[in-house]
Amino acid sequence: MKSKLNPHISVDIVIFGFDAKSLKVLLVERTFHDSVRRKSIKDLKLPGSLVFERETLDHAAYRILKQLTGLDQIYLDQFAVFDSPERTKRKMDRAWLQATTGIKIGRIITVAYYSLIQFDRANGQLAHLKQKAHWTEIGDIHKLPFDHNDIIDYGLEHLREKIRSEPIALELLPKKFTLRQLQDLYEVLLNYDMDNRNFRKKIHRLGYFTALNEIEKSVNHKPARLYKFDKAKYRKIRKESVSFLP
Amino acid sequence: MKSKLNPHISVDIVIFGFDAKSLKVLLVERTFHDSVRRKSIKDLKLPGSLVFERETLDHAAYRILKQLTGLDQIYLDQFAVFDSPERTKRKMDRAWLQATTGIKIGRIITVAYYSLIQFDRANGQLAHLKQKAHWTEIGDIHKLPFDHNDIIDYGLEHLREKIRSEPIALELLPKKFTLRQLQDLYEVLLNYDMDNRNFRKKIHRLGYFTALNEIEKSVNHKPARLYKFDKAKYRKIRKESVSFLP
Repeated sequence: MKSKLNPHISVDIVIFGFDAKSLKVLLVERTFHDSVRRKSIKDLKLPGSLVFERETLDHAAYRILKQLTGLDQIYLDQFAVFDSPERTKRKMDRAWLQATTGIKIGRIITVAYYSLIQFDRANGQLAHLKQKAHWTEIGDIHKLPFDHNDIIDYGLEHLREKIRSEPIALELLPKKFTLRQLQDLYEVLLNYDMDNRNFRKKIHRLGYFTALNEIEKSVNHKPARLYKFDKAKYRKIRKESVSFLP
Repeated sequence: MKSKLNPHISVDIVIFGFDAKSLKVLLVERTFHDSVRRKSIKDLKLPGSLVFERETLDHAAYRILKQLTGLDQIYLDQFAVFDSPERTKRKMDRAWLQATTGIKIGRIITVAYYSLIQFDRANGQLAHLKQKAHWTEIGDIHKLPFDHNDIIDYGLEHLREKIRSEPIALELLPKKFTLRQLQDLYEVLLNYDMDNRNFRKKIHRLGYFTALNEIEKSVNHKPARLYKFDKAKYRKIRKESVSFLP
């Protein structure tokens, strides 16, 4: 038995991907007939959904991720509640809500998540979706419905803050990666260039990136050594590290 | 014009206080006539409220804090959303909701905050409230309505985690404090005893606690030196400190 939709609460997900050069967000197409303005609308929005009456917010978020990407085990984190009474104010957005849910909608509070995914893992499923989805570069995102631009901005800010203290950015890379890929990732995420030699020195000093006896494949020229992140070592070092705590 | 209550979203606040010996939570009395069971109920719950239609969650939280304590500038942090469809299931809680709001209530999602307050700052106002409020020791809290026990447990867990990396616990102390008070606070929050000498050494090593040319008042015997937390120094040291970031 499918439970009823709760028209007051939704979840929205900022799905980040990294294609070796740039940071992207997965947006889905919104196509509908705006009966007030009598025209067809086709634009992009964040993946999201009202929650079902008998469903938790986490369930709703995983449901959306699974539907879009076909994947279960994806990094997902709840980062903020967007609760402005004005967020569902625009006529076009109200028309879309009405058209897709068939319910009269008032205020919707949305709980925002972000997810980190290896760029190519989802693309098989995405190609076959009825609801078209597009990886869009952060810099190329235009005005989105509701407060979705704010959600992305705040999600990115949150991600940038979090990667300073936790190794979650690695979720965006394959399990085995070159130091070049790792540096590119941090440069793109933090939006500044790093000195190659210093970067490598720091990585070695951290002690939880392990060099493998493997080199990268499918490059013609000077394949680089592959590394992996050693979670157990990281946890141990982390535990012993300085903190505020007296 | 007072706006309507939104019967789907609430906020609840875990207000922590420290009375020099133990960690307490401010609970408010809930008194009502349960017309189903035909008896008068009087028990304790977390301070909280449904949100008004035209109000943000932060506004609702500050509104409750102000009402209870008379204070504006209090540490307040949103830490989790409690969204189980079962959380408003109990008959007595439903009867109370109906009795106090006059609205038929279904599922309520509550956004939880915690607040840190200097124990005695609020007590003047608390004494004159119509809705009685009680500082209750963490260990003495009985079964509370809804999922309020879970909210306190998770709030405390969150606080314990956060004080490891940020100096927020100091919100629970007066601006000037002795090292004994500081150690007592951390011992109570983290629930283990610390070695006095090591504690003092660590505090001095941290570099952002400044000894004042003042000693504590109103003690008869061996008054101790007072210290304060130097925020500017803390920020500087913090900025230069190690982190995951390569």
